[in-house]
Amino acid sequence: MAATMKDIARKTGLGLATISSYFNGGNVREKNRIKIEAAIEELHYEVNEVARGLKTNATKTIGVVIPELNNTFCAEIITGMEDVLRSHGYATIVCDCRTDKKLECEAVEFLIRKRVDGIINMPVDEEGNHLRKFQKTGKPIVLIDRKIQGISCDSVLVDNRKAAEDAVQCFIKKGHRNIGIIGGPEGIFTAQERLAGYSKALNEAGIPIRDSLIFHGDYTIQGGVRGLEKLVRDNPDMTAVFVTNYEMTMGAMIGVNELGIQIPQQLSLIGFDNLQFARACNPKLTIVSQPTDGIAREVARIMLEHLENGKQEGKESFSEKLRTEIIEGKSVSFLNGKLP
Amino acid sequence: MAATMKDIARKTGLGLATISSYFNGGNVREKNRIKIEAAIEELHYEVNEVARGLKTNATKTIGVVIPELNNTFCAEIITGMEDVLRSHGYATIVCDCRTDKKLECEAVEFLIRKRVDGIINMPVDEEGNHLRKFQKTGKPIVLIDRKIQGISCDSVLVDNRKAAEDAVQCFIKKGHRNIGIIGGPEGIFTAQERLAGYSKALNEAGIPIRDSLIFHGDYTIQGGVRGLEKLVRDNPDMTAVFVTNYEMTMGAMIGVNELGIQIPQQLSLIGFDNLQFARACNPKLTIVSQPTDGIAREVARIMLEHLENGKQEGKESFSEKLRTEIIEGKSVSFLNGKLP
Repeated sequence: MAATMKDIARKTGLGLATISSYFNGGNVREKNRIKIEAAIEELHYEVNEVARGLKTNATKTIGVVIPELNNTFCAEIITGMEDVLRSHGYATIVCDCRTDKKLECEAVEFLIRKRVDGIINMPVDEEGNHLRKFQKTGKPIVLIDRKIQGISCDSVLVDNRKAAEDAVQCFIKKGHRNIGIIGGPEGIFTAQERLAGYSKALNEAGIPIRDSLIFHGDYTIQGGVRGLEKLVRDNPDMTAVFVTNYEMTMGAMIGVNELGIQIPQQLSLIGFDNLQFARACNPKLTIVSQPTDGIAREVARIMLEHLENGKQEGKESFSEKLRTEIIEGKSVSFLNGKLP
Repeated sequence: MAATMKDIARKTGLGLATISSYFNGGNVREKNRIKIEAAIEELHYEVNEVARGLKTNATKTIGVVIPELNNTFCAEIITGMEDVLRSHGYATIVCDCRTDKKLECEAVEFLIRKRVDGIINMPVDEEGNHLRKFQKTGKPIVLIDRKIQGISCDSVLVDNRKAAEDAVQCFIKKGHRNIGIIGGPEGIFTAQERLAGYSKALNEAGIPIRDSLIFHGDYTIQGGVRGLEKLVRDNPDMTAVFVTNYEMTMGAMIGVNELGIQIPQQLSLIGFDNLQFARACNPKLTIVSQPTDGIAREVARIMLEHLENGKQEGKESFSEKLRTEIIEGKSVSFLNGKLP
């Protein structure tokens, strides 16, 4: 039988109010603090956080809902956030919704029943229907990587438009004009932004946009393989391709190997995320690198601010944009002015 | 203010005992069931699982403690387990202890306070000190990938000794005799097993074991880079190397690229895990593949059996061994009988 606060009161001869004050961080006289801690030790008393959650209405638990735990970008951000949240005494319940709106909605329902204190979400349903019920609880929501119209909450984004623009400009500067893109799903905010950056860079260089050079992928490895194969088949004059997430970059490299294409002699390629994968490729890939650590810390910081200082009424919801950078490898060739 | 069971009782005119019976899966007359469900709908009543956990002493939550969420093997297993556990109504709280015994111990303490119903653990502390207190609660523990002396619990393992033996035999059959290994940390069970398999294959072929061909890595990417570089530097006659986890395989490929070594002409290599990475390498890598899906399903199945049927007294603890397989790529060359 686990010890209770009453047992500690009996052992120390102190009132329950004093014991309770001790556990809730109130003022307790030094003499009594020592007595209580000795009793805790002796009775092997454990704070029952389930019971505590019932009284304080705080479970010290944050729900995290992401599309895919197997996605490196998601996994890295979760690892970083957990470190910060845990050091402030918060646990995380991670739900992987397999990029499925229905599962995402169920995950939020589940977290509502678990009475989490807040939700961190990289949303699949970009209309945010899954979040409306949770929002009514008044508890904080922080979005990663995407914004949702009509849901008032903070979000941490990277400048995806600029990221794609930089990559395409890098090709253009080296003489490429027939540049393909393996983009993400058309309905996804980050994918739209990356495609907009691709188009902007081409427009500014006066290069017409060709539909056949645009592949709408699904952010999976297999999607990357299919995208690379289709772009190569449909565009014999394509000299460069930009791949817009890590999983599809791995897929594109599989496609390149299976078709026996030489990089960068026959095709230049810029990938996305995961510097270590880029270094393990032969030749080393040029990639767009996102500040995953910075995103993780920002998301955790904003959530903690809400939890510890409460929601400031009337405050505008906050949306921070972090910058990406290009890390150069050897996968982009100079076309030496000989435009195809 | 959230609706309570009392509100439902008032609304329906039924007794609290009936309402309670409804929520705990007891028998309730059809007529009353309909009334209760209408009231739930109307009052937007949510089962407070925090409160429920306090009464039933079950929180429907499983704690998972792993060394690194960023490790692909861990991430894949968690994804698979969560799918099974969630479909049975269990949430998971995942704690990543950064391969640190102290953090691992804190994670278990934290989960004890959260009153989880069971713990799934890929242990860092191979003496199991972090689990002793939880074990006293009588709640189930399932270990992944490792066994611990003196902790009576089930574990799901792969046959790591056989995995390494197969890989080294694959080199020997093609004429290699100077075979290096990038192993794991000396204190870790899986690493010991893989090294034992390496030694067994060499012994059986009558090839002496040379210390300079054995590198004890740390299962990280950087460890793989260092291991490859050291083995190459110390053993000019080495023609083949076996790398014993995915992260170090990626690291070894980085080392190979940075030293400008041609695979398989100058060095044959067999890696571990992650078929997609192996396909993205040029040339495609030969790898040892673990059945991560099978492991995930087995772990979840055993945990559910404990939770739903209770612990069977006197039952021997169970330890299942799953088989790995070698998936052939193009990274192992024939030495054509010309032994160096």
